[in-house]
Amino acid sequence: MNQHLQELKKMERELKLLGGTAALLHWDRSTMIPKKAVPQRAEQLSYLSSLIHDKLTSPHLKKTIKALGAVTPKLSLIDRRIVQEYQKNLHKIEKIPKSHVEAFSKLEIESAHAWEIAREKKQFSHFAPYLEKVLAMKLKEARFVDPKKHPYNVLLDDFEEGMTFEKLDPVFEKLKTGLIEIITTIKKSAQYKQQKDVLASVSFPVDAQKKVAADIKNRILQAPDRHTDAESVHPFTTRISDDDVRITTAYREGQPLFSFTSTVHESGHALYELGFSPQLRGTTLCDAPSFGLHESQSRLWENQIVKSREFWKFYYPYYITMFPALKKISLEQFYSLVNQVRPSLVRIECDEVTYCLHIVIRYELEKSLLEGKLKVKDLPQAWNEKYKQYLGVTPKNDVQGVLQDMHWSEGLFGYFPTYAIGTMYSAMIFRQLQQDHPAVLKEISHGDFTTVRRWLKEKIHRHGSMYLSEEIITKACRKNLTPDDFIDYLKNKYYSLYGIKQ
Amino acid sequence: MNQHLQELKKMERELKLLGGTAALLHWDRSTMIPKKAVPQRAEQLSYLSSLIHDKLTSPHLKKTIKALGAVTPKLSLIDRRIVQEYQKNLHKIEKIPKSHVEAFSKLEIESAHAWEIAREKKQFSHFAPYLEKVLAMKLKEARFVDPKKHPYNVLLDDFEEGMTFEKLDPVFEKLKTGLIEIITTIKKSAQYKQQKDVLASVSFPVDAQKKVAADIKNRILQAPDRHTDAESVHPFTTRISDDDVRITTAYREGQPLFSFTSTVHESGHALYELGFSPQLRGTTLCDAPSFGLHESQSRLWENQIVKSREFWKFYYPYYITMFPALKKISLEQFYSLVNQVRPSLVRIECDEVTYCLHIVIRYELEKSLLEGKLKVKDLPQAWNEKYKQYLGVTPKNDVQGVLQDMHWSEGLFGYFPTYAIGTMYSAMIFRQLQQDHPAVLKEISHGDFTTVRRWLKEKIHRHGSMYLSEEIITKACRKNLTPDDFIDYLKNKYYSLYGIKQ
Repeated sequence: MNQHLQELKKMERELKLLGGTAALLHWDRSTMIPKKAVPQRAEQLSYLSSLIHDKLTSPHLKKTIKALGAVTPKLSLIDRRIVQEYQKNLHKIEKIPKSHVEAFSKLEIESAHAWEIAREKKQFSHFAPYLEKVLAMKLKEARFVDPKKHPYNVLLDDFEEGMTFEKLDPVFEKLKTGLIEIITTIKKSAQYKQQKDVLASVSFPVDAQKKVAADIKNRILQAPDRHTDAESVHPFTTRISDDDVRITTAYREGQPLFSFTSTVHESGHALYELGFSPQLRGTTLCDAPSFGLHESQSRLWENQIVKSREFWKFYYPYYITMFPALKKISLEQFYSLVNQVRPSLVRIECDEVTYCLHIVIRYELEKSLLEGKLKVKDLPQAWNEKYKQYLGVTPKNDVQGVLQDMHWSEGLFGYFPTYAIGTMYSAMIFRQLQQDHPAVLKEISHGDFTTVRRWLKEKIHRHGSMYLSEEIITKACRKNLTPDDFIDYLKNKYYSLYGIKQ
Repeated sequence: MNQHLQELKKMERELKLLGGTAALLHWDRSTMIPKKAVPQRAEQLSYLSSLIHDKLTSPHLKKTIKALGAVTPKLSLIDRRIVQEYQKNLHKIEKIPKSHVEAFSKLEIESAHAWEIAREKKQFSHFAPYLEKVLAMKLKEARFVDPKKHPYNVLLDDFEEGMTFEKLDPVFEKLKTGLIEIITTIKKSAQYKQQKDVLASVSFPVDAQKKVAADIKNRILQAPDRHTDAESVHPFTTRISDDDVRITTAYREGQPLFSFTSTVHESGHALYELGFSPQLRGTTLCDAPSFGLHESQSRLWENQIVKSREFWKFYYPYYITMFPALKKISLEQFYSLVNQVRPSLVRIECDEVTYCLHIVIRYELEKSLLEGKLKVKDLPQAWNEKYKQYLGVTPKNDVQGVLQDMHWSEGLFGYFPTYAIGTMYSAMIFRQLQQDHPAVLKEISHGDFTTVRRWLKEKIHRHGSMYLSEEIITKACRKNLTPDDFIDYLKNKYYSLYGIKQ
């Protein structure tokens, strides 16, 4: 047994080294690479992926996992969990024929390209035949993996292990009702009717934006010798090794607050990646157990913390020294400006209140597609109807509508709900954090994040993927996934902001 | 045969992809990595090196090369040369026992560490026992590779293929005599006795240095979509893929011109790396045939071009707008200030005239060491005597003397002469370039590098390592390696600068 364990450790180590190297190739491609080198970078990345794939599918790994699987009771808790992860992976790899994987890789590229062309032409119809093929292949894949399970659950499990639509449906239903009620109430308020996008006319010089982004990142992450950052078109977080986590920021004209909120968002992800227990170093467990739990960490910082009155009480005096044009705007006024609610068409540009309705719409639609209840050709109409019904807005064209996200073009069905799961988790976490530490908001108003950081590390980060997200959340928050905390949080914050009596 | 060739192309491609990936890991370590991630980066690099080594020593590659070696007349010129390169490599790999390679890897690290400690302690004696071991192992290695050849020639061949000490000795002897004559003459001049380091008191703000470095780099390299740059402690050039060549620059306090000259130097290397013929893409021939020829390209730009009067005629008007403190210094005055000769102790800080004497000293010493004519323990004394004799200076301690370069600590015997070979090549090239294009200096005085770039690409760069350096130079300059052009160039330039009649 000992020898098999050593073999596994060796393979894990090599997989980690290759994975980190691939992450660096990717990071560099997004931040630094000379333009003409992109095709050769794709070759480098694809070669590294093939090395990783060869290792993951090697008969040697399979044999080792099988041998260890037979003696799990003798393994440590951590090793047992590692073996379990590989068993699950290997099961999936065995069930899906190689020809299917290869055909899908090819289709994925064609489909992503068709999606881009469709966006240029502003015509969903150009993308529709590809989406049909992608959908058919993902359904097939789900049947390969487990013909007895509902295909949506099979696909969802890739992003949110252990989650099912049976658990999600009632949660999302309640979330939707709550959000529509809040938005309807806000829209009726006098304040809503008078609100103006005052910040759009304020100057936020990019140099100052960069300094502020660096400042807030370092406040959240600390440990400057374990992370770094750069610019890229789309912000992201990546992990090159245990002590090398990186985020990117984008500075967008016309969206002056974007660099700030996105830096905070990515820093939330990065803090998670920096917080795994040293016992898990070099193992496959140095990762979040699900996309939803990862997202809860970015959303917590982006929304509950840096969109709070307490945070700006601390930060605004520094902030206006960086953006002197803000001097005519009071702290209270600024706080309401960064929290303006405005139902809109595009998910990645919307506010904290409307965000999850964008997700609910996608969840309902992708489930209907997979169940055959909705045809691809009818998707744009269904999309627009739901936007009208839930948010009261209608896209002028498909780019503002059904073509806005690339997820489906790559077959990522079951991915969208993780954004809403993360959002609900973040509200559960923030309520629990305040219950455990009643002074935490006061600390934030002094710029002191010690308690937040410590609580998150202790309750969430250090576990890596030793447990499922639901297990981690249930232990930390003493309840299962619920929209209640999020709805309560929104009502408390936004009814007060919009002068609405509860 | 066709199948073997295809196999070889596949292996070459994979080696190139891995090599470029390793180069990126290295680049990132020198420019960007968070401090704590350095040990894990070493693991990533060492794992990638082991993958490359496994490929280079695989029985499959050996078999393929053997099969192709049997049918070379049927191969294209390029393929024949590729097979030849692999044959040579494989021969070397086969001759040196694996145990020797492993023992040397270990010794190399210990020895480099001892060199660092010796520098801290300013005591050569701490490093001496390690240097003895390194020397003994390199001698053994040379005997493994070819017991019939002089060990110095075996080692030199690693850096300067085809070169021998029999060819070098008379060249270096003549070079030394010529340089000592020039330096002695300069030192006697009135101008030398009066010269002052005026630039030391001029302000060169780092922000402006960065802009100037970017400007000159882009003028030399053009093609902005095929290269990029960053900062690192020690400047270097690296190649990540055919369309991805990168240089680094360092901005040093107290050495205001360092960032400019080192950027030009690295740009010269980078221009070479960007100029290989498209026919060679993805092959092992996309490389210089020797260190000396590579160095000729960096030195040509660093010395012949950007230390010329013509260059500054063009560049000074822009330069003083970047460094307004220079306004009190005339163009002619500035030109002599950047070309001040001052015999000194440290190779990497010295001027164009004295540089090669530093190299001759190292060449003579390392050859004596390898021939057993000089004992390691006597090295510092021999070093100091030669510095006194050739340059008229004496180190205060071993850090300023024999401990200044790390090359020997890593067993790099035969590396130093390539610096002088490159310098002599650069003078041969520059003279030939002027003969082929008499208007080239005038073009440079207008900031027009078109002819220089075109000539270098046509005569040197595009060949990669299709031919040996000597073959390329002989074809381009119609003669073999000679110090004459360099000595003539120095006399013309410096005797005029120092008001000496020839």
